[in-house]
Amino acid sequence: MSDSALFGPDNLPYGLFSTPDRPGHRRIGVRFGDDVLDLGAAAAAFGSPHADVLRAPSLNPLLALGRPGWQEVRSRLRAWLTDDAHRETAARHLLPLAEVRLHLPFEVADYVDFYASEHHATNVGRIFRPDGDALTPNWKHLPIGYHGRAGTVVVSGTPVVRPQGQRKPPNEPLPVFGPSRRLDIEAEVGFVVGAPSPLGAPVGMAGFRDHVFGVTLLNDWSARDLQAWEYVPLGPFLGKSFATSVSPWITPLDALDAARVAPPRRDAPLLPYLDDGADGADGIEPGGFDLRITVRLNGHVIAEPPFSTMYWTAAQQLAHMTVNGASLRTGDLYASGTVSGPEPAQRGSLLELTWGGREPLELPDGKRAFLEDGDEVVLTAWAPGPEGTRVGLGEVRGRVEPAAGAA
Amino acid sequence: MSDSALFGPDNLPYGLFSTPDRPGHRRIGVRFGDDVLDLGAAAAAFGSPHADVLRAPSLNPLLALGRPGWQEVRSRLRAWLTDDAHRETAARHLLPLAEVRLHLPFEVADYVDFYASEHHATNVGRIFRPDGDALTPNWKHLPIGYHGRAGTVVVSGTPVVRPQGQRKPPNEPLPVFGPSRRLDIEAEVGFVVGAPSPLGAPVGMAGFRDHVFGVTLLNDWSARDLQAWEYVPLGPFLGKSFATSVSPWITPLDALDAARVAPPRRDAPLLPYLDDGADGADGIEPGGFDLRITVRLNGHVIAEPPFSTMYWTAAQQLAHMTVNGASLRTGDLYASGTVSGPEPAQRGSLLELTWGGREPLELPDGKRAFLEDGDEVVLTAWAPGPEGTRVGLGEVRGRVEPAAGAA
Repeated sequence: MSDSALFGPDNLPYGLFSTPDRPGHRRIGVRFGDDVLDLGAAAAAFGSPHADVLRAPSLNPLLALGRPGWQEVRSRLRAWLTDDAHRETAARHLLPLAEVRLHLPFEVADYVDFYASEHHATNVGRIFRPDGDALTPNWKHLPIGYHGRAGTVVVSGTPVVRPQGQRKPPNEPLPVFGPSRRLDIEAEVGFVVGAPSPLGAPVGMAGFRDHVFGVTLLNDWSARDLQAWEYVPLGPFLGKSFATSVSPWITPLDALDAARVAPPRRDAPLLPYLDDGADGADGIEPGGFDLRITVRLNGHVIAEPPFSTMYWTAAQQLAHMTVNGASLRTGDLYASGTVSGPEPAQRGSLLELTWGGREPLELPDGKRAFLEDGDEVVLTAWAPGPEGTRVGLGEVRGRVEPAAGAA
Repeated sequence: MSDSALFGPDNLPYGLFSTPDRPGHRRIGVRFGDDVLDLGAAAAAFGSPHADVLRAPSLNPLLALGRPGWQEVRSRLRAWLTDDAHRETAARHLLPLAEVRLHLPFEVADYVDFYASEHHATNVGRIFRPDGDALTPNWKHLPIGYHGRAGTVVVSGTPVVRPQGQRKPPNEPLPVFGPSRRLDIEAEVGFVVGAPSPLGAPVGMAGFRDHVFGVTLLNDWSARDLQAWEYVPLGPFLGKSFATSVSPWITPLDALDAARVAPPRRDAPLLPYLDDGADGADGIEPGGFDLRITVRLNGHVIAEPPFSTMYWTAAQQLAHMTVNGASLRTGDLYASGTVSGPEPAQRGSLLELTWGGREPLELPDGKRAFLEDGDEVVLTAWAPGPEGTRVGLGEVRGRVEPAAGAA
């Protein structure tokens, strides 16, 4: 299936673009095949009631519309691109994807990262605590998460400068300073909050569709050596905060209806606010998504993590994140945590793929335990769409640059 | 010394206010004694070159000006309020503090919380890990920090709804759900970033004055029972994210020149990017601040934490936070962590003051281990100003409301 076919009329993800002749003029675009629809211009041409929102220099006003608005915009948009009566007009506002520059599509409010793959958490536990329990006692009772740095969320294509910092070699008495030697990736799926919620009012799993606008692929770059030294007792900080890359395209939740699947069977009892009945028996729609991720390193496929295997769902994460009364803002981004499946070739981080660096990957261009300067990582993904079609998520690409001041 | 004297011409903190007749019209104000100067109106009257920035509905454009702009605005402002030639004009734009409503003064970008008091970290370590080392091995080598939730930073006076969530009673097999039973405070000092920095470029300690605009008092409300169950391995999340209260007034760094003090002697070697020579011998200005905090619970003084005892300084925290290349944004807020001094009456949290709840405070209106519904906590602070004056920080007030849905 061609790349273009992943972005058909059942997908229609939103992004932000500019053209070389007007680099400062950021506009909302919709990917359609290998083209981008200038949404503001099309909205004006068709007399859309949402023209103001669609002419904004960011997705945030569209995100803030809420679900009825999202559905109306999507329905009109689809008609513009596919109805015989409109297609000619719409075509005047299509630009070749290859000729535009894509930007970070929304202003990130808070960024939260979860840890929702049982396979990933188990692998990490075994690597770092070989003599202890692989999972912490809380793991099956709540979706563990933490806040990351919203200000360093960058769009696909942004170079990733190797971070410097402290690491503690096991046989040295003191920490040393320098460029990270264990730079890694984490293949994740991000969820973008559109509709805000007031302080003090938990949202609950049933609020997932009303509050979450869409989905993005995400690479949570991680410096394992910095992280290992800093993270006790308050969690990851500089080992993660230097960069988090996201796709330029946000796929609306409605485009993933055919990809809804039941999450894996849970083997510990869930408190009511997290109990999704797993099979949807309690009237809650299946919380999993059948997203198939591919991780490429310098062009070679190194992993194919299946998102359908995640223990905790995005709806549970939303319910947990707000159960204490924390409010949501338009532009909040929360990510799944590393997606790893049960098979070795389904692991979403080099840490796992090389088992802590001890079993380097054998690539045509050499061995890799962790990332080297110049390495390029590309995440892609697709999901089943209606009637045998596929819905693509936008790719997340990043190349590692040498540390600042390094030779 | 009267409260009014804490806000004299050497202080001049900035805030955001509205008046009852125009509740939607938020304006920048400067506290002067018991009055508020309508800064935008004054700037227009005096023909200030910064009138546009000073008429904004948030401090963010002023924060973004950078240090030369901050100094120019402050110098003019001081002249308007104190020069004989201007005072009469300025007085026309003074409003009684009691007649205005104060708002969150800036849009918080990222919020980071540190853990910089050796006394606090030692107390917490002793309470939670009585058989282990009080401090983790990394504590004296780097200022431990984590990202908190920016979207739930609220202004003084905002009610704090008791959070609900999971806790794990030690003698139960499974976690239980309900309102937090160990709701606590953390008396902290926050630093507000004005000038941004680019991704990939560490700022360093020497950049402190150029990037940090000012200081605010901060109460990092904490649900100890939620936190204890959730925080391994990725740090605090819901135990903190329900609310963080800040003062409505941001005191400019320049107002705290007389309060600069050397930090305590460090007893572990510091890596170069954190080595401040402690006594300023290396040409770096003293990194500590002599801020004297008072914590009141229902009107009774329960602690007087001295900020001068903090092991890690705000300049070191800034250097650490950006050493991996993380960028700064206008509106970033980073807090010191709980301020606790060496004496029992100097501890900035109930966790420490009551030693994990085992030694409740005896107050005139009853015992307190942790906060009860209806309790009100007020933080205030002052610092030495020039020539025997005092510079006050704005107060942080918050009352605990019952959990949502609780009887």
